[in-house]
Amino acid sequence: MRKAVCLLSGGLDSATCLGVARRDGYETYALSFDYGQRHLCELEAASRVAASLGAAGHRVARIDLRMFGGSALTSSLDVPKNRSAGEMERGIPITYVPARNTIFLSFAMAWAEVLGASDIFIGVNAIDYSGYPDCRPEFIRAFEGMGNLATRAGVEGATSLKIHTPLISLTKAGIIALGSECDVDFGLTHSCYDPAPNGRPCLACDSCLLRAKGFAEAGVRDALLDRYGL
Amino acid sequence: MRKAVCLLSGGLDSATCLGVARRDGYETYALSFDYGQRHLCELEAASRVAASLGAAGHRVARIDLRMFGGSALTSSLDVPKNRSAGEMERGIPITYVPARNTIFLSFAMAWAEVLGASDIFIGVNAIDYSGYPDCRPEFIRAFEGMGNLATRAGVEGATSLKIHTPLISLTKAGIIALGSECDVDFGLTHSCYDPAPNGRPCLACDSCLLRAKGFAEAGVRDALLDRYGL
Repeated sequence: MRKAVCLLSGGLDSATCLGVARRDGYETYALSFDYGQRHLCELEAASRVAASLGAAGHRVARIDLRMFGGSALTSSLDVPKNRSAGEMERGIPITYVPARNTIFLSFAMAWAEVLGASDIFIGVNAIDYSGYPDCRPEFIRAFEGMGNLATRAGVEGATSLKIHTPLISLTKAGIIALGSECDVDFGLTHSCYDPAPNGRPCLACDSCLLRAKGFAEAGVRDALLDRYGL
Repeated sequence: MRKAVCLLSGGLDSATCLGVARRDGYETYALSFDYGQRHLCELEAASRVAASLGAAGHRVARIDLRMFGGSALTSSLDVPKNRSAGEMERGIPITYVPARNTIFLSFAMAWAEVLGASDIFIGVNAIDYSGYPDCRPEFIRAFEGMGNLATRAGVEGATSLKIHTPLISLTKAGIIALGSECDVDFGLTHSCYDPAPNGRPCLACDSCLLRAKGFAEAGVRDALLDRYGL
């Protein structure tokens, strides 16, 4: 069985991505990060999701991106609330974490190399996203090219690294439909950037708004709302 | 004054690289990593070097690469000793740490973005090195290309990322000559992969052997030997 490292934040995108890897026949190794994010409860969601989708392994890397700051997700800056779709489309929001996906993919590459895996799954998408530079297809292709020069396999001419982005061209509604096909239980996931201490979503940050829009367009009830009696 | 992030392990290569950045007029921000390496005393060397070369900032990022293993530098695998030049030239040694430079450069990119810097210095070299895939010029160029798509600047068309590798084509003797020109005190640096608890170098690992060969070829006494009465 081929092994794949799957980046898993605990949100619905990465959960769907892990479900796709499993459906496609990979033995999955889920990788999450405790990077000083204010919404740490997403790590509990990641554990629930990894267990429910039968990951062969799940590790949490501790890295402290608060040491650099520069993002509302890793500092005391306010998370923006109740922004319109038009506002979300303008520029890069304050919730962008500098170089986050580059760092996450670098760690995934390290683990893949040790596991003897050449497949990495990441749930980025370029539609209905938050305008982050490191979610764009051109970034992913460039990372893959770099990765093929960075590792033992790159020197020894062994199997080459492949970064899988099964969600890249899907809308949020499309991701929800795909996740449902792959038996993802969205009630286990977490999306909110600014949750209450018990994990209850704020329903007003960009991430909550994009999630609600996605479920509305997919015509599906979000099981997470039932979890919190919302 | 332009700012530059300089990766600083505490070894003589990265110390020279920091010296070059200073000589070239940059305000330097040194970045070191506590990654679970067995030769942690290199971090004390990094602090000494950063202070002596007037770095405007020095941070140590804590990341635990032991969670993946796969290297003699982050596990209980034996560090090879007394290898000949011919042996060192064959293949990738067990001291290679999977994806290490990719991870280090990713963190440097994050800090650079927050500082508003577009220059990163890294002391890799492709001559007299240990056969690591992520020390090759083609890897560095690919990382630079990827980095220019990964960040805010990549989207907004601001200044582009430049990875400086002033040592890339130098021999170890050439690096020592350059470092001396840039006022680097090599007695403050640390190179050994398998030091005694007090930091005394083993004089037998690849890193010690390459260092000794470099000083011999440069015709310079290594001040580090005096430090330990060697």
